[in-house]
Amino acid sequence: MKAYRISRFGLEHLEQVELPTPQPGRGQVLVRIHAVSLNFRDLLMTRGLYNPKMALPRIPCSDGAGEVVAVGDEVSRLRVGDRVAGIFMQHWLEGSLTPAKARGALGGDVDGMLAEYVVLDENGVVPFPEHLSFAEAATLPCAALTAWHALVHAAAVKAGDTVLIQGTGGVSLFALQFARLLGARVLGTSSSAEKIARARALGLQDAVNYREHADWAAWVQEQTGGAGADLVVEVGGAGTLNQSLQAVRTCGTIAQIGVLTGLSEPVSLAPVLHKQVRIQGIYVGSRAMFEEMNKAIALAKLRPVVDRIFPFTDARQAMQHMASGAHFGKIVIAVNS
Amino acid sequence: MKAYRISRFGLEHLEQVELPTPQPGRGQVLVRIHAVSLNFRDLLMTRGLYNPKMALPRIPCSDGAGEVVAVGDEVSRLRVGDRVAGIFMQHWLEGSLTPAKARGALGGDVDGMLAEYVVLDENGVVPFPEHLSFAEAATLPCAALTAWHALVHAAAVKAGDTVLIQGTGGVSLFALQFARLLGARVLGTSSSAEKIARARALGLQDAVNYREHADWAAWVQEQTGGAGADLVVEVGGAGTLNQSLQAVRTCGTIAQIGVLTGLSEPVSLAPVLHKQVRIQGIYVGSRAMFEEMNKAIALAKLRPVVDRIFPFTDARQAMQHMASGAHFGKIVIAVNS
Amino acid sequence: MKAYRISRFGLEHLEQVELPTPQPGRGQVLVRIHAVSLNFRDLLMTRGLYNPKMALPRIPCSDGAGEVVAVGDEVSRLRVGDRVAGIFMQHWLEGSLTPAKARGALGGDVDGMLAEYVVLDENGVVPFPEHLSFAEAATLPCAALTAWHALVHAAAVKAGDTVLIQGTGGVSLFALQFARLLGARVLGTSSSAEKIARARALGLQDAVNYREHADWAAWVQEQTGGAGADLVVEVGGAGTLNQSLQAVRTCGTIAQIGVLTGLSEPVSLAPVLHKQVRIQGIYVGSRAMFEEMNKAIALAKLRPVVDRIFPFTDARQAMQHMASGAHFGKIVIAVNS
Amino acid sequence: MKAYRISRFGLEHLEQVELPTPQPGRGQVLVRIHAVSLNFRDLLMTRGLYNPKMALPRIPCSDGAGEVVAVGDEVSRLRVGDRVAGIFMQHWLEGSLTPAKARGALGGDVDGMLAEYVVLDENGVVPFPEHLSFAEAATLPCAALTAWHALVHAAAVKAGDTVLIQGTGGVSLFALQFARLLGARVLGTSSSAEKIARARALGLQDAVNYREHADWAAWVQEQTGGAGADLVVEVGGAGTLNQSLQAVRTCGTIAQIGVLTGLSEPVSLAPVLHKQVRIQGIYVGSRAMFEEMNKAIALAKLRPVVDRIFPFTDARQAMQHMASGAHFGKIVIAVNS
Repeated sequence: MKAYRISRFGLEHLEQVELPTPQPGRGQVLVRIHAVSLNFRDLLMTRGLYNPKMALPRIPCSDGAGEVVAVGDEVSRLRVGDRVAGIFMQHWLEGSLTPAKARGALGGDVDGMLAEYVVLDENGVVPFPEHLSFAEAATLPCAALTAWHALVHAAAVKAGDTVLIQGTGGVSLFALQFARLLGARVLGTSSSAEKIARARALGLQDAVNYREHADWAAWVQEQTGGAGADLVVEVGGAGTLNQSLQAVRTCGTIAQIGVLTGLSEPVSLAPVLHKQVRIQGIYVGSRAMFEEMNKAIALAKLRPVVDRIFPFTDARQAMQHMASGAHFGKIVIAVNS
Repeated sequence: MKAYRISRFGLEHLEQVELPTPQPGRGQVLVRIHAVSLNFRDLLMTRGLYNPKMALPRIPCSDGAGEVVAVGDEVSRLRVGDRVAGIFMQHWLEGSLTPAKARGALGGDVDGMLAEYVVLDENGVVPFPEHLSFAEAATLPCAALTAWHALVHAAAVKAGDTVLIQGTGGVSLFALQFARLLGARVLGTSSSAEKIARARALGLQDAVNYREHADWAAWVQEQTGGAGADLVVEVGGAGTLNQSLQAVRTCGTIAQIGVLTGLSEPVSLAPVLHKQVRIQGIYVGSRAMFEEMNKAIALAKLRPVVDRIFPFTDARQAMQHMASGAHFGKIVIAVNS
Repeated sequence: MKAYRISRFGLEHLEQVELPTPQPGRGQVLVRIHAVSLNFRDLLMTRGLYNPKMALPRIPCSDGAGEVVAVGDEVSRLRVGDRVAGIFMQHWLEGSLTPAKARGALGGDVDGMLAEYVVLDENGVVPFPEHLSFAEAATLPCAALTAWHALVHAAAVKAGDTVLIQGTGGVSLFALQFARLLGARVLGTSSSAEKIARARALGLQDAVNYREHADWAAWVQEQTGGAGADLVVEVGGAGTLNQSLQAVRTCGTIAQIGVLTGLSEPVSLAPVLHKQVRIQGIYVGSRAMFEEMNKAIALAKLRPVVDRIFPFTDARQAMQHMASGAHFGKIVIAVNS
Repeated sequence: MKAYRISRFGLEHLEQVELPTPQPGRGQVLVRIHAVSLNFRDLLMTRGLYNPKMALPRIPCSDGAGEVVAVGDEVSRLRVGDRVAGIFMQHWLEGSLTPAKARGALGGDVDGMLAEYVVLDENGVVPFPEHLSFAEAATLPCAALTAWHALVHAAAVKAGDTVLIQGTGGVSLFALQFARLLGARVLGTSSSAEKIARARALGLQDAVNYREHADWAAWVQEQTGGAGADLVVEVGGAGTLNQSLQAVRTCGTIAQIGVLTGLSEPVSLAPVLHKQVRIQGIYVGSRAMFEEMNKAIALAKLRPVVDRIFPFTDARQAMQHMASGAHFGKIVIAVNS
């Protein structure tokens, strides 16, 4: 089978290789991958910036969707023909995250999804809603689930609440869509008028261009009558957290998601105390949360926002497109299309 | 001013009387009532079936909306011209219910809203969303807030959940509207095909005629793939609870609301245990919940379902209409229109 | 090996038999049982009153503790020599209960623990605190975990709360011990002055003899200054629930545990509504809760209350002792002692 | 009456003055203060470091206890002779904190308790447990309630959990006492072997000298078998948060309390994300929490740790004693003794 692999860190070392097609062992399934979606983590991983100690060679990418084409002995949850997506952390099925469950993230601790075939434990995949294409389903495991986890589990967003999203990347647009589904108002920040217009079409009520308004927290306060946002979906790098602490309401929540670069920064924590803010770290989610999210997606016939689908041969270009920051929603690579 | 009052129990003793217009004392507001909505409790109260020891004479009805026309000394929350609705329990402002807060329910412990003018503590009213008429606002204090309390606080309904409503009375239709706002699926029971059709127009996905299917719990199980409903909004009298216990999912919630008649009945509690069901009593809600609900109603521009508006002179007919059970949504009496 | 088995319902059919010693398969462990504790369910099961459709023959008893004496291939959680107890529902490891997890209860759906050797999935056992004997550990799987689930998960009992227990059976005494550990006050009911005295030695603050005070709810109200209990651990049969509804405070919780007989009874649900009571069904608990409880037991060096230890040959007498209701705490049967 | 007041910032400007004894207006009570306890905030306030814009002159100190000696008209909650403590934020009675409720903190927004007599709204005081002296009761409003809020409301500490405290100041020792009451294990840091010994007498299980072990997070990990603490009560200034993030378990909580100085510091937030840590700001608590805490204190007959009682004439020395950091527990100033 064809697969992409890095044997040295660096985007230029992301190479297509020919590997033996794996076979499912007991309790495992063989999935013919149809689509893979990219997360910023995949780019960092490839460049050696996420986990410089990661063993190589490694097949990258955590998120993919495909069809079960063979099952090993004693498989009871799935059948050949099932359309499934992988789960990000293969051992986090339900309950709270533990260090043991956190091991086994696809495209990091173990090989990922950027291959024609993947063998996973039958517990490591979930069927996805029928109305979704493989490309759409491939966007769910990391970005969508992270947004769902933040909105539903960390902040229990309800109708009438105000949610602030940052930019128009994958997590932010899923947060927008889920927040609207839950009856909330969504405010956003972006540097592009065009992206703001597209987000409005998805339900964004108001937005601010953070290039023009560096103190966008003040704008959020204005928009909320001085109250602040109930939830800030914090995906930013250095510098946004201080604004988020100003933008969130007293007793509000900041879902901390995007600390992928600039990990150590001066933060003024006084508002945490006096406004009784909760900062809740969000690291994807469990399989049980995934199944719960799928029920919501299926009921609403919600469609993930796919920015662009690259052919399998252009995986490197897809990564570069992500690095450019020009995308709106999820970048997908077609496999076996 | 004109008002209705009962000096003896019985609908035939509900009489229009002329009373001095009250004046607001310190911390109080004078509200010119524009509309009153009826709850089944008002009918029971009038007939002496709710609280046979209630002191008489008494102005009935808990739910009304109007305009602040005068304020007493030291009033700081409101101004003349504010459009407000009363809160059901005048002392339950926030936090958990206590016996002390439970005292002071309008149209029961103290005089109610079926009058041209009412004086209330400034803490006992809330401004309502701008897009609502007085008639619509009058439907909120008891029925809407009870539904909000059940869905948001007792069951934390989220997108993808399944909510079961019973019939098409005030609480049930608000539960339907709020559940849809929160992204949930709603199933319902009714004895009327016409009412089912009207409920479908409000977002009801599927319904069963309980006259034709006495074992409607089996129908709910079928509709949910054998899982059962996440939440049952139990407003029924004798007999429905046993079906609700069959219809709810393992670890699901039954919001117990309508135990107004037939209070003592044989209940088979075995499913409570083996399915780990939660039965949560719901008794209207606090002012803080009311304000929170108003944010949701305002954001969604949600419109309460008003069955019919009776003129002030026809208050008794309005009560009889409620007794007939023919209504769909809330019955309103216009006052000062 | 020796084991007890019923091939027909009835205590007189509980017979000691000789069976082949089972061998652990892949992922399984062989446990040499040292002690088994009885629950009322075991008695009902044996008599055919719990599940008349249960397949026979069946080895009874859900609760036992022993030592791992052999492990199958691929066992990673346990080693030979580990001291373990079984978990009640073999598939409920964590998260919420589901119908699938509810299948596989020991001594009911599958063979139980009243045997010299038992083979279980390595996921179906937990190591127990070091300071406990096998007899003490055997009391944990059902009675202790049910009490822990009720206090910690259903009611989040905290210091200063008031918990009401009923009688001095296994669940009630664990509820007493855990409530004291959590800093709560415990009130109790009993028909025996002697049992009350023994419960006081375990930390019970006050008790009422329900034979002398049929309206013991009034006594609870008095003891709590008219507030009522925060949590009632409801293990009674017919008749206690109505009193419990009077005894619990506004917004309090009734943990519904003991509906084993008299399942259908007239209940006056009016207090559920007006006091906003929560009735929460409790059906044992998950393995994750068991592990969490073990941490608390280990830290406090808490000792379960063992009423009496019967030799293996006297299993039937042990069951009869349970039927007599004379016990105080847990009845244990020694195996392989 | 005698009172202390600052008319300019600086400890040297804390002066005893003679002021007219205030009289209670409608709904107010006159409290004869018997004892005042100090918080670090009082020192910062006096020095102008807490709120440089605070209006002067100002009577400092938020925490005091005394006896009601007169009541104004319409007072219904209290009677002459009641022993009461003030509440920190006079308007935060229950529910969530809001900006409006956050205004009116004693000894900051309004005059504080370092005076012979104080007039407060009847809603702004709570009776305290009978077994406490005035000096002990004076320690509750800020330090004890902050610890209670963190343990019970932010982290829901339960038996078997591990709580980490920092140092032996007021909040930390209350956290220790409450954690023990709730059945938890408590680990601590200190720079003094003597203070560690005294904390052990209060129930501290293990401690590390942070002067000797700068990487005390590693010690916490060791003590917890690599799991980390369930809750870190973070009262430190600059530098401790990074260690706390290492010391807390996956999915654990950091109660952020002590950001009084060094508000802006470089924090490495990566663990927040990957360990899904919750950082919850804690700003004292509501009156409802205070009453709830009092029930726990009364039931356990818990005694606050009073470091030393200074006579009223030595208020400045008491402040200097706090500045020295030599105290263990709460510093009290006797008033009207």
